[in-house]
Amino acid sequence: MTEPLPDLLIAQVVRAALAEDLGRAGDVTSQACVPAGARLRATFASRQAGVVAGLACARLAIAELDPTADFKAAAEDGARVGADGKLASVEANARALLGAERVALNLMGRLSGVATLTQAYVAAIEGTGAIIVDTRKTTPGLRALEKYAVRCGGGVNHRFGLDDAILIKDNHIAACGGVGEAVRRARAAAGHLTKVEVEVDGLDQLEEALAHGPDVVMLDNFSLADLRRAVARTAGRAVLEASGGVSLETVAAIAATGVDVISVGALTHSASVLDIGLDAA
Amino acid sequence: MTEPLPDLLIAQVVRAALAEDLGRAGDVTSQACVPAGARLRATFASRQAGVVAGLACARLAIAELDPTADFKAAAEDGARVGADGKLASVEANARALLGAERVALNLMGRLSGVATLTQAYVAAIEGTGAIIVDTRKTTPGLRALEKYAVRCGGGVNHRFGLDDAILIKDNHIAACGGVGEAVRRARAAAGHLTKVEVEVDGLDQLEEALAHGPDVVMLDNFSLADLRRAVARTAGRAVLEASGGVSLETVAAIAATGVDVISVGALTHSASVLDIGLDAA
Amino acid sequence: MTEPLPDLLIAQVVRAALAEDLGRAGDVTSQACVPAGARLRATFASRQAGVVAGLACARLAIAELDPTADFKAAAEDGARVGADGKLASVEANARALLGAERVALNLMGRLSGVATLTQAYVAAIEGTGAIIVDTRKTTPGLRALEKYAVRCGGGVNHRFGLDDAILIKDNHIAACGGVGEAVRRARAAAGHLTKVEVEVDGLDQLEEALAHGPDVVMLDNFSLADLRRAVARTAGRAVLEASGGVSLETVAAIAATGVDVISVGALTHSASVLDIGLDAA
Amino acid sequence: MTEPLPDLLIAQVVRAALAEDLGRAGDVTSQACVPAGARLRATFASRQAGVVAGLACARLAIAELDPTADFKAAAEDGARVGADGKLASVEANARALLGAERVALNLMGRLSGVATLTQAYVAAIEGTGAIIVDTRKTTPGLRALEKYAVRCGGGVNHRFGLDDAILIKDNHIAACGGVGEAVRRARAAAGHLTKVEVEVDGLDQLEEALAHGPDVVMLDNFSLADLRRAVARTAGRAVLEASGGVSLETVAAIAATGVDVISVGALTHSASVLDIGLDAA
Amino acid sequence: MTEPLPDLLIAQVVRAALAEDLGRAGDVTSQACVPAGARLRATFASRQAGVVAGLACARLAIAELDPTADFKAAAEDGARVGADGKLASVEANARALLGAERVALNLMGRLSGVATLTQAYVAAIEGTGAIIVDTRKTTPGLRALEKYAVRCGGGVNHRFGLDDAILIKDNHIAACGGVGEAVRRARAAAGHLTKVEVEVDGLDQLEEALAHGPDVVMLDNFSLADLRRAVARTAGRAVLEASGGVSLETVAAIAATGVDVISVGALTHSASVLDIGLDAA
Amino acid sequence: MTEPLPDLLIAQVVRAALAEDLGRAGDVTSQACVPAGARLRATFASRQAGVVAGLACARLAIAELDPTADFKAAAEDGARVGADGKLASVEANARALLGAERVALNLMGRLSGVATLTQAYVAAIEGTGAIIVDTRKTTPGLRALEKYAVRCGGGVNHRFGLDDAILIKDNHIAACGGVGEAVRRARAAAGHLTKVEVEVDGLDQLEEALAHGPDVVMLDNFSLADLRRAVARTAGRAVLEASGGVSLETVAAIAATGVDVISVGALTHSASVLDIGLDAA
Repeated sequence: MTEPLPDLLIAQVVRAALAEDLGRAGDVTSQACVPAGARLRATFASRQAGVVAGLACARLAIAELDPTADFKAAAEDGARVGADGKLASVEANARALLGAERVALNLMGRLSGVATLTQAYVAAIEGTGAIIVDTRKTTPGLRALEKYAVRCGGGVNHRFGLDDAILIKDNHIAACGGVGEAVRRARAAAGHLTKVEVEVDGLDQLEEALAHGPDVVMLDNFSLADLRRAVARTAGRAVLEASGGVSLETVAAIAATGVDVISVGALTHSASVLDIGLDAA
Repeated sequence: MTEPLPDLLIAQVVRAALAEDLGRAGDVTSQACVPAGARLRATFASRQAGVVAGLACARLAIAELDPTADFKAAAEDGARVGADGKLASVEANARALLGAERVALNLMGRLSGVATLTQAYVAAIEGTGAIIVDTRKTTPGLRALEKYAVRCGGGVNHRFGLDDAILIKDNHIAACGGVGEAVRRARAAAGHLTKVEVEVDGLDQLEEALAHGPDVVMLDNFSLADLRRAVARTAGRAVLEASGGVSLETVAAIAATGVDVISVGALTHSASVLDIGLDAA
Repeated sequence: MTEPLPDLLIAQVVRAALAEDLGRAGDVTSQACVPAGARLRATFASRQAGVVAGLACARLAIAELDPTADFKAAAEDGARVGADGKLASVEANARALLGAERVALNLMGRLSGVATLTQAYVAAIEGTGAIIVDTRKTTPGLRALEKYAVRCGGGVNHRFGLDDAILIKDNHIAACGGVGEAVRRARAAAGHLTKVEVEVDGLDQLEEALAHGPDVVMLDNFSLADLRRAVARTAGRAVLEASGGVSLETVAAIAATGVDVISVGALTHSASVLDIGLDAA
Repeated sequence: MTEPLPDLLIAQVVRAALAEDLGRAGDVTSQACVPAGARLRATFASRQAGVVAGLACARLAIAELDPTADFKAAAEDGARVGADGKLASVEANARALLGAERVALNLMGRLSGVATLTQAYVAAIEGTGAIIVDTRKTTPGLRALEKYAVRCGGGVNHRFGLDDAILIKDNHIAACGGVGEAVRRARAAAGHLTKVEVEVDGLDQLEEALAHGPDVVMLDNFSLADLRRAVARTAGRAVLEASGGVSLETVAAIAATGVDVISVGALTHSASVLDIGLDAA
Repeated sequence: MTEPLPDLLIAQVVRAALAEDLGRAGDVTSQACVPAGARLRATFASRQAGVVAGLACARLAIAELDPTADFKAAAEDGARVGADGKLASVEANARALLGAERVALNLMGRLSGVATLTQAYVAAIEGTGAIIVDTRKTTPGLRALEKYAVRCGGGVNHRFGLDDAILIKDNHIAACGGVGEAVRRARAAAGHLTKVEVEVDGLDQLEEALAHGPDVVMLDNFSLADLRRAVARTAGRAVLEASGGVSLETVAAIAATGVDVISVGALTHSASVLDIGLDAA
Repeated sequence: MTEPLPDLLIAQVVRAALAEDLGRAGDVTSQACVPAGARLRATFASRQAGVVAGLACARLAIAELDPTADFKAAAEDGARVGADGKLASVEANARALLGAERVALNLMGRLSGVATLTQAYVAAIEGTGAIIVDTRKTTPGLRALEKYAVRCGGGVNHRFGLDDAILIKDNHIAACGGVGEAVRRARAAAGHLTKVEVEVDGLDQLEEALAHGPDVVMLDNFSLADLRRAVARTAGRAVLEASGGVSLETVAAIAATGVDVISVGALTHSASVLDIGLDAA
């Protein structure tokens, strides 16, 4: 359902993960116990209900060790699966499959965990106008994949790095001598395809920021009452993003204040893996 | 306290993380809002109690962007810190520090999260003879660092990859036609510095495995009663590792059965980050 | 003047360029003719008037081969220099300096060429409200550096790649069955920090596009008369970017039509190098 | 016609260029607007007359994103094409083709630009005994490809780097205390497969250099009269290379002096791209 | 016969070797003399008797330059071949085959040399209970391949690096103040899958070491008499490894002392290549 | 004495070798047994007489793990050392030094072995006019370093790869239909800085080759009588290189035939390491 990433963006992560696991001598156990030419049929299955993401990682990991492997996805990234939901079936050289198994499961489990948690947040605010977005609190080396998993869960991506949008924070404001001056300088430096967001920590800063026309204002750790006041005062002059103190318990109330966007660091920094296993047929 | 990793093993991860975050144009916000020569003083501080790990990642991330940065650790990896515990102070070029901040926090937060969770498991079995070990369910690309964080938390490392120890699982047993034959083949293939571990799923397999002299037997998803029986029957002929269904609630009872080793995938696959922030002085 | 790129983003290009030039045996001429310990004093000087960009490339190239080199910039990136303008002085190991010379000159000459051409376009439209922007028609491997050089010349950057902004072109429109539907789908897919631009090839398409609220409309190969009509009809509902058939002869007239942005592929794909030399003192 | 480079030497450049353009999220526009499975037929066509070079770059870029793509070259590298000359037809996954388009065009356009300019120089001296050669003034990272493009245009390659031939310049002469001593040292250090070239700036130096048997003498910025004198005095004792101040206007007169080789930095440092486009069928 | 390494572990070495040999312009001789489309049939044959290792390197090198090449192994790694033994036949693009030839021969010749020398040591101690193992004295960059070649020759691998087993040497003992304390600390630090070996230089140290339960004791430069005494005194409490002064002349006598393991640095640091050639059919 | 390679060309090999040895957890023995802050003084000393090469490798390996290390060379690359000759003294962090020791010794031992063997060949032909050159039979990944070691031993380098000189062999001749045509085609394709060598297997081919003006003729496996005849017939028209069947026993007689160059594959493919050790002070 979710638009898949090009393999080119995934392949390097998969190869590095295989190299990390195979080390200098490869899978010494399978070399000792499994004949070189043996084939194995197996099924990737979830052990928990959740949202799947990262099927291509499993496919590529196995293909790296056995280009003749036959991998058939039984679900699509972004699909909800139940406990014991079948994700894919595979037929491959036995050693190759066992050698790629952990890498496939580590990547697919982690990405599906992110997608599943994202989906829970999205479900919690269904019917409001707000959207759930991620942050840059991602695993080093996996940002593109984790942000993809957020999309699989129905979330939307915040900026991908320090370079593709301007986000003014307290230290920038301090360096400029005020939030208004900071937005003004950012506006002047931004190209015609770069948006400017500014983080404010109170209603006073909000007014001063709005005077200089930011595209987005991040309301950091605002109370529900202040979020409502911010929505009212802004009156559509900027997109409003609530940030800080967001949990599955609080997110619905936050969405109900009328903010446009709710950013949740936990989507990528604290999701548990989705329990997925590989069962020999 | 914990023996630190050589910088050489960390530097590549840190550099890749910086490249991922800086993208193609660097920190456009700081370029717009912070003068090129400005300096900044700041403090890394934990917002939660926990065990710190990864201070070198923060130091290296900042040094990559400003070799003249002055980074002073206020704690050591492996130390327990309280909420608002000071971890390090830093004085550096302001843009460099802001550009490295998220990478430093992402790595240190994640590794400290692993160390903190490990420490909780270790504390839960204190006084028993058992040790807590990790698994290969690590984040692709970060295995060496996450296993280091396990050590910071008082845990012990299981094998690092498919190549540095033999671990016989169900598919290997099936390929060999029995657990005894599998251990025999592994024994024959193993060098004099390679240990052989075999996973068994019941007491019958345990007896058959022990007959061929494995160094370690993994008891997978055994009931407490069966763990006790396994300990009694093994009588020191092999190291026993309990695996599966381990949680902070169950780990003490598992340790009390007399097993030597308890492996916990959650240490690395489902730890939440430790909340750490960077506060300008 | 222009905010410099972090060395981290430059160093990899410089190192690859040095490796490409040094090959497998290094500078065999200097090894044969210059004593190992000799030092050399020299000056980087422009032989033509222009805008300098890439001084850091020269500094880093020399430092890679001699970390003790003393490099003193005499100008800043973005500065205008005359014929025979002094750019930097350097004192270094003679072999190191001669070994890095061509890499330093190739990078600085190319980037200064881009900056100089950009500056000519910027000067040609001075006093109008329009800005000059680049395109993705950059040298493979040098995009970040060439876009930096555009900024040194007073230009503004268009998107950095396929991922940091949406730009709908004819093939996308064809796939969607119409420009309106294309903008609608893009809008729905875009995050709150991603801008949407659409390229139109006539006034009819412009109207249809505007109905769906793009941030920017690219007017591709419009006549001056049609550009004026587009400005009038748009009436500020979107930023307007003129593209195609732009040269130093035509750019002023295009800017005078009232468009906001003029994109010029030639800035990066057809700039001549600025002639810079290294003169021994 | 020109012997193609092995794909191995091209693939890394192509992959790096794709990674640079796809960034962290890939082609977000095509993801939003083009169905995942759609196919596209298109034609690469030149918009200007010129000499084509780099067809393999286009083929490889598309194959990286869609290994099933069907790419049929309609011309060969080194062939002259007219305005609107068809270069290749391709049928591929639509997103893959659109994602690779800019990389394919940037590389093929740049290389064809080099080949086209080279061919103009070659044509200008047709009938003389001289040959046109390139220099090390190439784009960092693209030297092998640009020197290949020179061959496509009928030119010949000068040395590829600092390591595959000796070229003595003014600073080397100064370090040796004279041109004769420099050639003598170089001769002694050179292996039996390494040629020795020396750059001289006047007829006096030429005599002194010839006394020590260099393979090639570069006559730097000589007047036409002095070039003629140099040819006469050398009388075949060394290959003579004219360098400096060479343009399409002056090259025929230079060739007429009887020099063997004319080196032209502009071939690679100042060629405009050949305008090539991709037209959907 | 020997279990082959996964291609993934070989491919990077092969690609780097090809890049090293092809340089910046590829095989200029074949480009000049062999038509682009010509095919060539040839046979890899040994010119000396020995043990073959590294056939996959030859296959992969050729496949990198011609994916359509047809490579048929006529022997398996680990097999003994006579002088003029046929190893493989290949049919491929002529330029590709000639371009890959030297890389294929360099790798296969070197690995077969290691396997052949190993086999000689193994044969020399046949009938004793001892095994021949390698050391870390391998060629930088080729450790995994050379250790694989040792296995092809019938040897067994010592540790792969500094990280997969503990090996206490004189400097560690000095730092700990004694061999007993060193083994004790190592034991405490070692995980349940990590073996501990200690090197001793005399019988006194042996006793002290054994008291702390090492898995393996390395007897460094012991006389035959002392080796026999060490075997008697150890009485099976640890695996004993003889090291130092091992040659094909001395190894049988060393094995006859009853040690379990004999390590031989020469296997990898001083093996001559096996002379292998490629003969056109 | 020999001109050292730039560190840039060495550093990548050293870093890869360290990564290969440190693996995923670093030097676990030193971590267990040596305090983190301890310093160590030690001396690199040869245990055999020979020619040293690669001191920079040792220096760089240690500096990678301890940038504060103090490394003082006591000899220069190219110098002869006796048994127990002191090569360098070093004072460094103890763990860093022990962690880099094996990499330093592996590289320096191997390169010194190549230099020592080269020197033996050079000494064997002293007084003749011939020179000793290497081949492309080098260790994959170490070509630049091994060819440098050949220079340290007094040898001269043959071409560095397939791209920096033309060397016509039997398969090329077969493809061209004769040696004369092969030289003619090569001559036409070669640039003015590229030499052309042709390998002939008999006196007939020699005559035919000389008719087309090659720079060098390789006489492959000629008898001494035929070598003498070849020298006489060539009469200085080309440089003559003897190849095949060269050993320390035969090389003087070969040189005495009057050939200019003798190429010896054994220099790099079959040199034993020079035994070098690191002794703690």
